[in-house]
Amino acid sequence: MSVPAQLGDSKVEPVKASLQPLLDLVKSDLDDTNQIIIDRMHSEVELIPTLARHLIAAGGKRLRPVLTLGAAKLCGYEGERAKKLAACVEFIHTATLLHDDVVDESDLRRGNETANVLWGNQASVLVGDFLFSRSFQLMVEDGSLDVLRVLSNASAVIAEGEVLQLMNVGNVNLTEESYFQVIAAKTAALFAAACEVGGLVANRDDKELSALETYGNDLGIAFQLIDDALDYSAEQQSLGKAIGDDFREGKMTLPILLAYKKADEEERQFWKRVIEQEQQEGDLAHALELINKHKTLDDTFSYARRYGASAKAALDIFEDSDAKSALISAVDFAIERAY
Amino acid sequence: MSVPAQLGDSKVEPVKASLQPLLDLVKSDLDDTNQIIIDRMHSEVELIPTLARHLIAAGGKRLRPVLTLGAAKLCGYEGERAKKLAACVEFIHTATLLHDDVVDESDLRRGNETANVLWGNQASVLVGDFLFSRSFQLMVEDGSLDVLRVLSNASAVIAEGEVLQLMNVGNVNLTEESYFQVIAAKTAALFAAACEVGGLVANRDDKELSALETYGNDLGIAFQLIDDALDYSAEQQSLGKAIGDDFREGKMTLPILLAYKKADEEERQFWKRVIEQEQQEGDLAHALELINKHKTLDDTFSYARRYGASAKAALDIFEDSDAKSALISAVDFAIERAY
Repeated sequence: MSVPAQLGDSKVEPVKASLQPLLDLVKSDLDDTNQIIIDRMHSEVELIPTLARHLIAAGGKRLRPVLTLGAAKLCGYEGERAKKLAACVEFIHTATLLHDDVVDESDLRRGNETANVLWGNQASVLVGDFLFSRSFQLMVEDGSLDVLRVLSNASAVIAEGEVLQLMNVGNVNLTEESYFQVIAAKTAALFAAACEVGGLVANRDDKELSALETYGNDLGIAFQLIDDALDYSAEQQSLGKAIGDDFREGKMTLPILLAYKKADEEERQFWKRVIEQEQQEGDLAHALELINKHKTLDDTFSYARRYGASAKAALDIFEDSDAKSALISAVDFAIERAY
Repeated sequence: MSVPAQLGDSKVEPVKASLQPLLDLVKSDLDDTNQIIIDRMHSEVELIPTLARHLIAAGGKRLRPVLTLGAAKLCGYEGERAKKLAACVEFIHTATLLHDDVVDESDLRRGNETANVLWGNQASVLVGDFLFSRSFQLMVEDGSLDVLRVLSNASAVIAEGEVLQLMNVGNVNLTEESYFQVIAAKTAALFAAACEVGGLVANRDDKELSALETYGNDLGIAFQLIDDALDYSAEQQSLGKAIGDDFREGKMTLPILLAYKKADEEERQFWKRVIEQEQQEGDLAHALELINKHKTLDDTFSYARRYGASAKAALDIFEDSDAKSALISAVDFAIERAY
């Protein structure tokens, strides 16, 4: 697929990027992980598996558990533990998705209803709590305090990142530093933990664990940058996908944070109004024009590529292998899915 | 304080019941636990300690951490671990309170706003998630997989109980068995775990751990029964406390579950309408009349006393001590606070 003309970044070459090598590498393990997920999200309280299934079966790419399985393979691990711990990672991710779905009164007033409309806020919260608890039960079964440490730390950091993001809503003066702080916490922390757990089961040393953590962290940041860019992507829109969710929520993500920095006085007034006060019909279209004018999606992609390069570099200390190539290709996939 | 005439249960003697002996017993430990709670709910994300402080400092009796400290004392434990683990128990409890505060659209439509109105649903959920994660971080620091097992199991059971309760809302045909299943899960599981953790730090054997679990479980059930009775208590109302919350939410708690069982046809129609369909002005007053007529608060208190007696009996295997007396007195307190 060629780079959309609107991006105007002639340096970008289309890259053959795919998650497939990684998916192929872990296929058999992932099948087992999926079975563990299905078995262990069971509860006699029917609504729990019903709601969890809705989300877990919704056909995500299972990116995070795949990273745990892939990192374990990179470290030559051949045992059973990675499969169960990959399920733990997915349960934590699913719990955060369910909790993200919870809406505020203010959102309801704005008519902004999310997927939780099917079951309601309370069910989303409680089933999320169940999956989160179940994840810790599985880790206890596994019996590694190191794994428990890594994933409980990640969980606390994710919650902090989500709260920080909530507090930043409507703040047009958000700094790049604060933005990166949020995405590192809310997204990259679990990517990093997922990868580190793969090294932990293989009893790798601190240097290698740290490399896996860096790989996961930088991949996670790149992944979130692309997500934030796609929310303003004309190509996404042309594919019939919803865009502008972040905009409507008053979230200062990088594309508009950079557009605000480059704005003239009139544009600044626009951004202040739509982020801090209220939005009107046609505001999203105008925001897209300004993002296009200042080429801030290109800037966002540039950042993503930089983090992607750093993620790949972190794997340098590992010997070449199919697993290493697959993990590198996964970085390209995370970034090039934008095009 | 004498038994209110309306209860019409002449067999009940006023009992000198107090939590004070237990509070006195653990006072110095509890001060340390409170300091750990304050220190460890800290986050650079300001909203987290702000919101957590609002709830944690709101001056609850710290009943659950007090039970951990008291159970540890009963087992002759003199070390530091119980203090930190008591903080874990309180963090889990606070997280569930925050998540209970989350309201649904339907509640909003009914104008039923809870404490979360100050910060909103999302903040309640995320700060709850943070405290829950922090609790597991502290357990990992402590390093006991047994403690992690007991508290992660309790957390999963609590979430199941809360979901079950949610599913039971509006079901006028709820059985006593289902009701007890809910309160065992949503309330008694954490009481049981709090007590068992006190025995775990003292390295007690399975028989004693099981006795502590039974004590906590039966105390927790008694505690919740009294809570559910107080929501329909004329004395509470005369003290200026809000009553009827459960009624307005369509929750089938024991006082109305039993009233429905004893109802004549006209009364059944009333209960069906107010629980399954809609409520009108004056319905709570009529519900209180029916509860009074059928003396179902007395029945609820009788159940609570039975569970209280069972809780006390569970401690029989321990030698007499100040700690044992204090824990027995705490059972009386949990029940007699109704009068």
